[in-house]
Amino acid sequence: MTADLARPALPLRPELAGLEPYGAPQLDVPHRLNVNENPYAPSEQVVADIAAAVARASTDLNRYPDRDFGDLRADLAAYLRAESGVALDPAQLWAANGSNEIMLHVLQAFGGPGRTAISFAPTYSMYPEYARDTNTGWVVGRRDEDFSLDPAVARDAIAEHTPSVVLLASPNNPTGTALPFATVEAVLDAAARVPGGCVVVVDEAYGEFRRRGTPSSLELLADHPHLAVSRTMSKAFGLAGARVGYLAAATPFVDALRVVRLPYHLSAVTQAVARAALAHSAELMAQVGSLRDERDALVGWLRERGLRVADSDANFVLFGVFDDRRAIWQGLLDRGVLIREVGPAGWLRVSVGTPAETQAFKDALVEVAAL
Amino acid sequence: MTADLARPALPLRPELAGLEPYGAPQLDVPHRLNVNENPYAPSEQVVADIAAAVARASTDLNRYPDRDFGDLRADLAAYLRAESGVALDPAQLWAANGSNEIMLHVLQAFGGPGRTAISFAPTYSMYPEYARDTNTGWVVGRRDEDFSLDPAVARDAIAEHTPSVVLLASPNNPTGTALPFATVEAVLDAAARVPGGCVVVVDEAYGEFRRRGTPSSLELLADHPHLAVSRTMSKAFGLAGARVGYLAAATPFVDALRVVRLPYHLSAVTQAVARAALAHSAELMAQVGSLRDERDALVGWLRERGLRVADSDANFVLFGVFDDRRAIWQGLLDRGVLIREVGPAGWLRVSVGTPAETQAFKDALVEVAAL
Repeated sequence: MTADLARPALPLRPELAGLEPYGAPQLDVPHRLNVNENPYAPSEQVVADIAAAVARASTDLNRYPDRDFGDLRADLAAYLRAESGVALDPAQLWAANGSNEIMLHVLQAFGGPGRTAISFAPTYSMYPEYARDTNTGWVVGRRDEDFSLDPAVARDAIAEHTPSVVLLASPNNPTGTALPFATVEAVLDAAARVPGGCVVVVDEAYGEFRRRGTPSSLELLADHPHLAVSRTMSKAFGLAGARVGYLAAATPFVDALRVVRLPYHLSAVTQAVARAALAHSAELMAQVGSLRDERDALVGWLRERGLRVADSDANFVLFGVFDDRRAIWQGLLDRGVLIREVGPAGWLRVSVGTPAETQAFKDALVEVAAL
Repeated sequence: MTADLARPALPLRPELAGLEPYGAPQLDVPHRLNVNENPYAPSEQVVADIAAAVARASTDLNRYPDRDFGDLRADLAAYLRAESGVALDPAQLWAANGSNEIMLHVLQAFGGPGRTAISFAPTYSMYPEYARDTNTGWVVGRRDEDFSLDPAVARDAIAEHTPSVVLLASPNNPTGTALPFATVEAVLDAAARVPGGCVVVVDEAYGEFRRRGTPSSLELLADHPHLAVSRTMSKAFGLAGARVGYLAAATPFVDALRVVRLPYHLSAVTQAVARAALAHSAELMAQVGSLRDERDALVGWLRERGLRVADSDANFVLFGVFDDRRAIWQGLLDRGVLIREVGPAGWLRVSVGTPAETQAFKDALVEVAAL
């Protein structure tokens, strides 16, 4: 083999050849209901407090940040206690640049070459990318027709594939489905039987939007050292642009993530922004309440018009079924409403926006789908 | 094997067992000269501009950031043109949360299982961690007694180990040694002959501190599609707390990194902070000039006192040789001066601080080493 010394080839890993970078289209349209963002921008007070916090942090920005972000971990623990009633030690908290970096840390510590991660589809489309990025084998089991997860199916799949990592989204993206404790506990039990060990991550990115009576897996942490619950500030806190994901687990679990994180992965600015927003959590959670109401009303409206709608504990709604969902998606986009073509064939996902945005979506859908 | 269902084992990867998280001690002492931070805090004007930029970015922080950070890439290209005289297209720039995330992306795209990365020691102690985190094989060749790299040694090592990634720090950490073009070109030529391809990353984290007449490998980019030059805003810009690293390369090289990056890896806040600081680059580069002068004077002072000192193109100085370097390090710490015990046996590394910090270091060293 003779190398072309003038144009040497790049040794791109073969599994990456021809791939496009992941991501939903970022289109500039009047109503962006495609990536489950919180429609409410930070208030003037939150913006002012963030700016002031960043100004304070910037006075010694020439210094490396606190690698272990102790203050932020304490604030996150206090927030989870208020939100879910679960008391955690700050050492049980971990944070990173978005919950996708959290998942990367989990798979670097517990997955990797020669190991397998599993989830149950339809579910979040980034999971196989996390596995690929960490050279972890990827197996996907199935959810039921109604997007619930049959505990027996989960048990059997875990027993068959002996994964070292199980990823369970609850509420699930793109379906909105929350898992009952019985299912999570069945998975935890099956994971505990995997030789060599298996960790279970319940991805509660949309946890704050769960309906009354739907529990958080945070309540299961005390009894399950192989469980982690991940959360994000992107959704309920309306801070998608700030990139703050976090995770709660037993301390040995978190200590494993500390070994694989890049040193100083969380900037002093990110820490300051997150803490400033957490100080406003009561106000932000009130917004979450109105988004939940808006969501429930939207589910009802869609069902009244004869559409199938998945039960949703999230800030989005999966609905269908359309023979040509692409035509519906395009028709909505032509009317300035961007939603997401995702999920099983025939289904579409719409994020819960402001009342005005929801109205724009309804008006457009009535026209496009001739409801 | 019977699993203990009550206390299931965590499937920590065996190569991580017993490891402590990487990082220098973060001690609160009067003079921190241990991690090559820029001693100059951002000016009041820079702090104010950063806070204002973050306030603007925060008004829609509920939205995901620009995944491809086009404005920041354009600003980085303009800065490099001013700093090094090399014209680059914004598409040739890449950025991430610190240059260690840059290196992670490089190794995810071009390294990984079944592949090897190589560097030449003594060099930056994080390199093997990047390799470990990406399951890339790690080989280390040797630098000469004076910390230069013999082109023939580099060629032979690359021909023998056929790495897919070569990491060359220039100026090198912890020695301060910059590589001449002839050495980098010899490495590029050897890399071009590796079957399957091999990329070369010249890590110029300390590039702005190079002495007059020392070239930047940015000048070699146009002719070498398998070359990348990484930089950081942590050192010259005095923004270690903001975590902004970047890389310049041919567009196909950058496009490969776009595939492995986590979506939205760079927050809207980080983008805003970086751009606000870049707008002050002329002022910040003047500070770099005085740090260079301070560094050259410190090298001279140490040599006058009979110590061996490595030529330095960085903002730190490696000096020795001490029979008991730990005693010297501790003696300095006892006098409020924290330096770094790193590099070959008997050597110590001190960051270039303010004139007052340098004086405190000199005074303490005179006492401790009886100069």
